Formats: sequence, structure tokens, C-alpha cells
Amino acid sequence: MTLYQDLSERLKEHIELGFYKPGDKLPSVRQLSHEHGVSISTVQEAYRQLEQEILVEARPKSGYFVMPKQRVDNLPNVSRPPQRPLEVSQWEEVFNLLMIGDNKKGVQLQHAMPDMTTPTLKPLLKTLADLSKQKPELGLGYGDLRGSEELRTQLCRLGVASGCQLHPDDLVVTSGCQEALSVCLRAVTDPGDIIAIESPSFYGSMQAIKAANLKAMEIPTHADTGISLEALELALDQWPIKAILVTPTCNNPLGYTMSDDKKERLYRLAQSYDIAIIEDDIYGDIAYQFPRPRSIKSFDEDGRVLLCSSFSKTVAPGIRVGWIAPGRYRDKVTHIKYVSSSMCPTLPQLAIAQFIRLGGYDKHIRTMRQRYEKQRDHMLSAIKRYLPSNTRVSFPDGGFILWVELDKDIDSMKLVEQCRKEGVGFAPGPLFSATGKYRHCFRINFSEQGMEQRESAIKILASVLLQFKSLS
Amino acid sequence: MTLYQDLSERLKEHIELGFYKPGDKLPSVRQLSHEHGVSISTVQEAYRQLEQEILVEARPKSGYFVMPKQRVDNLPNVSRPPQRPLEVSQWEEVFNLLMIGDNKKGVQLQHAMPDMTTPTLKPLLKTLADLSKQKPELGLGYGDLRGSEELRTQLCRLGVASGCQLHPDDLVVTSGCQEALSVCLRAVTDPGDIIAIESPSFYGSMQAIKAANLKAMEIPTHADTGISLEALELALDQWPIKAILVTPTCNNPLGYTMSDDKKERLYRLAQSYDIAIIEDDIYGDIAYQFPRPRSIKSFDEDGRVLLCSSFSKTVAPGIRVGWIAPGRYRDKVTHIKYVSSSMCPTLPQLAIAQFIRLGGYDKHIRTMRQRYEKQRDHMLSAIKRYLPSNTRVSFPDGGFILWVELDKDIDSMKLVEQCRKEGVGFAPGPLFSATGKYRHCFRINFSEQGMEQRESAIKILASVLLQFKSLS
Repeated sequence: MTLYQDLSERLKEHIELGFYKPGDKLPSVRQLSHEHGVSISTVQEAYRQLEQEILVEARPKSGYFVMPKQRVDNLPNVSRPPQRPLEVSQWEEVFNLLMIGDNKKGVQLQHAMPDMTTPTLKPLLKTLADLSKQKPELGLGYGDLRGSEELRTQLCRLGVASGCQLHPDDLVVTSGCQEALSVCLRAVTDPGDIIAIESPSFYGSMQAIKAANLKAMEIPTHADTGISLEALELALDQWPIKAILVTPTCNNPLGYTMSDDKKERLYRLAQSYDIAIIEDDIYGDIAYQFPRPRSIKSFDEDGRVLLCSSFSKTVAPGIRVGWIAPGRYRDKVTHIKYVSSSMCPTLPQLAIAQFIRLGGYDKHIRTMRQRYEKQRDHMLSAIKRYLPSNTRVSFPDGGFILWVELDKDIDSMKLVEQCRKEGVGFAPGPLFSATGKYRHCFRINFSEQGMEQRESAIKILASVLLQFKSLS
Repeated sequence: MTLYQDLSERLKEHIELGFYKPGDKLPSVRQLSHEHGVSISTVQEAYRQLEQEILVEARPKSGYFVMPKQRVDNLPNVSRPPQRPLEVSQWEEVFNLLMIGDNKKGVQLQHAMPDMTTPTLKPLLKTLADLSKQKPELGLGYGDLRGSEELRTQLCRLGVASGCQLHPDDLVVTSGCQEALSVCLRAVTDPGDIIAIESPSFYGSMQAIKAANLKAMEIPTHADTGISLEALELALDQWPIKAILVTPTCNNPLGYTMSDDKKERLYRLAQSYDIAIIEDDIYGDIAYQFPRPRSIKSFDEDGRVLLCSSFSKTVAPGIRVGWIAPGRYRDKVTHIKYVSSSMCPTLPQLAIAQFIRLGGYDKHIRTMRQRYEKQRDHMLSAIKRYLPSNTRVSFPDGGFILWVELDKDIDSMKLVEQCRKEGVGFAPGPLFSATGKYRHCFRINFSEQGMEQRESAIKILASVLLQFKSLS
């Protein structure tokens, strides 16, 4: 490590440890040169490095300052979806997104894919390889319909962190969270029923609503506090809503985590209208705060909350291990899980169970939590630096996706198309609405490790945006 | 190998090669002793061995005879289900069956599990272990929503054997055949629609009908020729049936294969009523005849046949690799597959693709086909020997399950319960009816390699039946 790298690492550490807070002035070049016994140019090089990483900014004639983390001033506006239940459209757009392989060249930030290059996944991969070699017969037969008991036991252990007291018999393992959500939707509804959802909302759950012959009632949602309980209550008064489907912790795509208090109030509201809550907790374990936030399920007194999750965002989507804590709907959920895809493969379940049991999962999560938080700050800085000043952007409390709101007259479908030609991929806004709203928004993933790549993606986006402006 | 074993092996070979046909008298003990230069007692021991394997029978004062294969005289009667569409019941009974682990002691013949101890699976297991070790990253990311292209290419190759000309783009890979069936049902129907099915029928597809809010119209079905086209046509005239779901090749549970001619007539019938056919071909590749029978899909001119299959019966259910050739319903099928469980894991798909490509699959199938046919004959002989003479039993053309029809007043639910206490498991008849018919029937698996175990299971069944008789 060279002298300047060494210095920039130390400064970075000090910023991360909070010795210098966002907005603080950092020591002058001269001062650092003196303190560390290095040349002026070494210090300058170190600061250039930190600027590059968008951790500090140089203010002319004032020196270097820690980049601000908070961008509360330009969060996306509260959403204003249509005030009635509607059929979900946008499948063709979702399909086009899904069909983009991640092996394409360029910077593909359209899928909510976690960083899977981290060495903290190695113990899991080794277990998978070992099991495959040493106990291949486990990969052949049917396992327990509800999932491997070893895994369900470990899932109960994880549940404690979110405030849940679960028993292995309370759980049903699924083929990822997508199956969990689909199964739960079918378990608590009849065809034609209405489901209340956040707006914007994850396209996978909305398409599941469509496929189950349900209607979606999009509820206004704040980018920092989540679904509007006032608007939800009005909707509950007005329409025969059968269930509420929310992602209250590290929301996809908005990134917020609802407060414990609000989670409990949402639960009480569901209780007073006697309806079910389907809680998508897929990003819950990679909230940046530790211990992780409580789930709505942790307030559940009467089994009306169906918690859905998986290891697709915390570990890797290809593992295809998800689960449901279905509460009072267990029997119906088990039935629909059976018809949906029968038993889940045993080996990945056992490998994950061991990964949790031996502490590998906790270690991995700890690493990813810190990494993603840093990458969020970097991405926010890059957006602030390169995108137009009226750009609004979410401030996620966890996970690795940002929601960006552009000028009203920008069409993100066209923007995506143009950016794709330049090798940059992200997910256009209309996919996150049942009815194709959010045309001027997009979701972008920042899990990719390469800081330069992420920054170059934003630069390309900015230059394409400039072309758009000059055309209009 | 001892002298008597050597002799019995030779005799067995002659029987299998057809030198001696079922019912033929075999050479006398004296004659064989002379021909082979062995003692009388050696020949007697050899014959005892063949009797044990139920290949020959000793008739007092007449000598030894080859056991008959054909039992056409006592096939189960044509079924007579209720003449109207009905909701599917029996979930609790199916659930109880599914919850019986295969790791229980005794002889568990309730699940339609293939023989997974065969060495012909070794190349596949090796590939799986190698991929897991050498390319673990393939197990982490999302693959193609429609399934790995390598696998889809190999599936097209397999399709040729059943008379189908498919293109990789015509296929959607699923998480086993259960997902394939569920997805197809949802793709071709709206809630409340009616589906025509064989009777008896696989409980998994019936439960999928239930979960999709559909009604089942059970059609009378012959144990040797399959669904009655006359009865089906009457039903099509009388009810607004939306699709026909059939397993025309190595039917579960009846074992028959419909003739090519009848398959084509069924297709024409669907064409004239302009409805879809969902064809479950899961056992198709382990038909005993070679080349394997054609599928209904092979007659498809206008894309109305949705072929569903998987490697769960031919290779191993734990692999969870199934597929759909959805014809004109491809877009809807892709949508529902996506919401059902998103992408399928990549590694098992690649391993299976390689298994097919390098010839391992063909070799494996060839072995299993011959093995299962022998085991069928043995099981039929054991049933003939030990169960009451009025027992009716199917004569499967492939696969590894038998359907047994007992005296009308035998309750198979109680019989199963009693046999379970004695360590023998099989599947009671009512699970195979939408409305709990076939109480005096059961399905039994004969894939298990241990001949003695299978025979002991039948003996125990016989002794429990005797107790039942004495009680009534």
C-alpha cells in the first residue's frame, strides 16, 4: 500500500467511525502533512482518492468537507396513485426486464441482485459442494413438504432478531420469496378480491396479484415513512379490501423502513377491519441498523400476518430458498404450496441451515450491511454530482436499491432504452405501478462492488439525460 | 456363483428371451439334471429360486410352468365417476400421505418414487458435485426465466422420441411437473371453469384444480385403454368444459398407455370443441416399449396441447426439474411461471442437460425400463399369489405403480392405517378421486429394488386383509 493510500484509508476510517460527521471540515493539507510526516502531494493524492470515492468534497478556498449523507430535502414526493382498485398491467414491460441477462456487457443495474462476489459466501458454497459430493442421495428424494426441519429451526432463530417467536411447525419453506408471496395471496383471497399495496410496489408481487385474478388498490406512500395509514383507512372504509401486502422494512423500491410504532398501528388497523397482512421481509436482514428492525409479524397476536421472506437478497437468488410464517393460514398455505411446486430441493436448505448455525450467515450479513450502506452513500453522491439538481432520490435504510424521480417530462421507458444502448441497465418506473404510473422514475441497484462502474453508469445516465433535454 | 444359481440364471434368461412363454411347461428336473450334468437337488434348488422370484410356479404332479404375465382377465373395472363437475375434496388425506417420510422403517410404497439407487445415475451425481465445486457462481445468480437454453435444447432432443418437433423457445422449465401442471391449469382457465380428467386421476393435479378454483369433471376411464372418448364427448356436449387434463402414457395410477390412434382422436375431439389439452407425460420416457409411445402433443397442429413433464419419475424427484411445451399458451404460461416461483435454479438444469447430451440419460432409461418391467411382473405374481382371488389389478405399460381393486366392502383407508402399523405403506384409493371414491382400491409402488421387501409387503397386506375378513 502506498503512502497516499494508507492515509486515505485512515481518513476513511475516521469518517466511518464518526470522528468527522457529514458536513464537517476535514484537516487541511498542510496539517495532515505535518501530522503524518508525509509530503503535501501525498496528502493531496489521498484527498483526491476520497473525492473519487465521493466521501469528501473540495470547496474552493475552504478546504475538504465530509459529503453529506442525508438528502431528506429531495426525497421523492408522496405518491398519488388512482383512488380505486384496478387490474395490474405492465406484464410485457416486466417480461422485457426479466429477459435481460446479467451476463450482458456494461453495467447492469436493473435487477435487485445482491453482491455475490463477497468471500463471506465461501463457507456456504463449500457446504453446498461438500453436500453434493458426500451426500448426493439427499438431492434425489423428496423432503418434508414444509421444508427441512433443520432449516426451519434456524429460521426461527433468525426470526428472534425481528422480534418474532416462531416454532418450526409455524413455517413453510418455499422456492424463493416470489413463491411465498404468490402462495400467500392465493391463500387469503378468492378471485376478484382487492389487495391494498404500497405505491410504488415490487412488480413481482403485483404480477402475482394479476395472476391470482385479484385487483390492486395502490395506496399513497411516503418515501421516508411508508404507506399512508390515513389513505389506507379511507380505502378500507370504501372498498372490500381482503388483505394488505406491504414491504415495511427496507422497502422495494423506496428503501424506507416503517417505524415500529407505525408497523404496530398498521397491524391494529388490519385487526380492526379483520383482514390479513402479507408482509414481504425479503430485505429485512440487510437493514443498515443493528439489531435489525422489528417485523409487523412481531406484533401479531392473532395469526393474521403472513410473513414472507427468502435468502435471495441477503445471500443469493439462485439458491431459491424462501419461507412463509403463515400464522392462522398455515393449512391453506401448505395446500397451495404443495400444488404450486411440491417439495423444495433439500440440499440448498441444509446448506443454508448450516451457514446460519455455524455463524457464517451473521458474519456475511454484518459485512454486507456495512458495505451496502457505504455504497448507498457513494451512489447518492454520484447522483447528486452528475444528475440534474431537481432530481429526487430515495434514502434507503437498507438493501441496495435506489428510487430516482426525474423531471416530470422525462420518459424513463425511453431513457432505459437509450441507456441500454450505451451499456447501462436500470428498471423503469412504470413496472412498479399497477397501471404504468411513475414514467419519470426508475430504480437502480447499487450492490455491484465496482465503485467506478457504478459511477460511470450514473455519468452515462446523465449524458443520455442531457441529450433528452436538448431534444425536447 | 453356485451351481444352482448358475442354472437358475440360465433358465431366467431363457424365459426373458422368450424361449419359454408364460404358461409354458419347463423341462423336468430329471431332464435338466441330465442336460447340465448337475444333481437332482441342484435343479430343485434352482427351481425353488425361480419360484421365489415368482417367475415359475410348481403345479402338483405336472412340473414347473412359466408364470403368466398377462392378467387381462382381472383388470380393474371401467370407472363410473359422478356425472357432473364437482369441487375436489380429499386434501386432508393427500396431506397425510405427503407427510409420511420415506425414511420411515418398513416398506414404504405409498409415494411414486423411482429407484434412485441405480448406478446409472452416477454420472449425473458426479456432474452435479463437479458443477457445485467448480462453478458455484452458477448456483447463485438468476438464470433465464424460461430455463437454461442448454437444457431446453436437450429437451427438444428428447421430444423427438415422442414424435414432437419442438424448438427451445417453445419450452418453459419449471420446478417439477407439479408446477408445470399448476401453471398450465391457471394459464388456460378462469376461476370457476370446469376441467375434464380421467378417473382415477393423480391427486396432485386434482389438488391443483382445487387450488385454482376450478371444478373437476371426472370421466369414466378404462384400465387398459384410458379415458372413455364417448363419455368425454357426452360431457363436452353437456358442460362448458374449458380443458382436458390427461396422463395418456403410463397413466398414474392405472398404468395404461392410450394407443396412438386414440390419442389422435382425443386431440381431434379437443379441436372440434376448441378446448385445450394439458398432457401429463411425466412417465412417458419409462414406458416399457422402445421406442417410447407418441405423445398427444405430437399430433398438435394448432398449439392447443400443453405438454407437461419432469425428471421426477425418470431420474429423481429431488432434482426438481420439470418443463412445459405450452404451444399457443406460451406467453400466459411464462407469466404464471414467473409469478409462481420466478426462475429455476441453474445447476440442476445444466447437470441434466449434460446427462442427456453425453448419453447417460438414454442409458439410464434403458436400464430402468427393463428393470421396472421385470419388477412389475414380479409384483403382479406376488399379488396373484398372496391376495384374494377376486383382486383386480392394473397391467401397467410403463412406470412403477400398480392400481389394485379389492372386494367392494374393503375400506382402503382403514387398510392403509392397519398396514402402516405393520410397517407397510401404500396410497389409499380415495386420494385419486375428486370426491373420495375408490375406497376399496389402492396404489402401490414397485420401484424399490429389493424383491423380497416388495414380496413381504404384499404378504403383510394379505395377512391384514385376512384379519379384515374375519372381522366383517
